[in-house]
Amino acid sequence: AYSEKVMDHFANPRNVGEIENADGVGEVGNSKCGDIMKMYIKVDNDIITDVKFKTFGCGAAIATSSMATELIKGKSINDALKLTNKAVMEALDGLPPVKVHCSVLAEQAIKAAVSDYYKRR
Amino acid sequence: AYSEKVMDHFANPRNVGEIENADGVGEVGNSKCGDIMKMYIKVDNDIITDVKFKTFGCGAAIATSSMATELIKGKSINDALKLTNKAVMEALDGLPPVKVHCSVLAEQAIKAAVSDYYKRR
Ligand code: FES
Repeated sequence: AYSEKVMDHFANPRNVGEIENADGVGEVGNSKCGDIMKMYIKVDNDIITDVKFKTFGCGAAIATSSMATELIKGKSINDALKLTNKAVMEALDGLPPVKVHCSVLAEQAIKAAVSDYYKRR
Repeated sequence: AYSEKVMDHFANPRNVGEIENADGVGEVGNSKCGDIMKMYIKVDNDIITDVKFKTFGCGAAIATSSMATELIKGKSINDALKLTNKAVMEALDGLPPVKVHCSVLAEQAIKAAVSDYYKRR
């Protein structure tokens, strides 16, 4: 039921972990299933030079976060803020409808990390 | 928010994988979050000699399945059928209420694997 890309990013998630001395950290929770997602960004000259995530969430949350971090790494903060969960799901060749709420976690965590970055400056 | 035992079984899950030529295979789905769990058992003389699981589910599903497989390995089929998700959660020093539905997946998957075992005989 899951696309090959979803299974690949689930089995070999990119950018899992923490960043010490991150410039922004976002933590969001999912009211539907109770899962949490933590996103760390390193920012240089408005460019996201590094990003890592940690989650207790399911395979769909792992796959969408993995893809989302790949999509914003090396991009400007403005581009990162424009990334929607819909675009991430498309990059993964889709997700079952029941799993759409898991992809929202990644989008929200990126926005929370950026807002934390702005707050710190 | 999660106990040390939950985090241990999440980070180092026991008995993850598949069993080739399993004597029983159970697959169950969780209507609440859409996650699935697959459980494989090897049975010898009514004793569960090996058990493995695979899931796309969240950290709580991984931790409860890891603990559940430890609890039924080497036990009789009858004992395995008596294992409740409540007992598994207690063995893990508890789970947040929002995550109780994830622990149900392991109990149901064990029962499905045993029922598949009986069906095959
Ligand atoms: S949220 Fe689906 S198994 Fe835990």
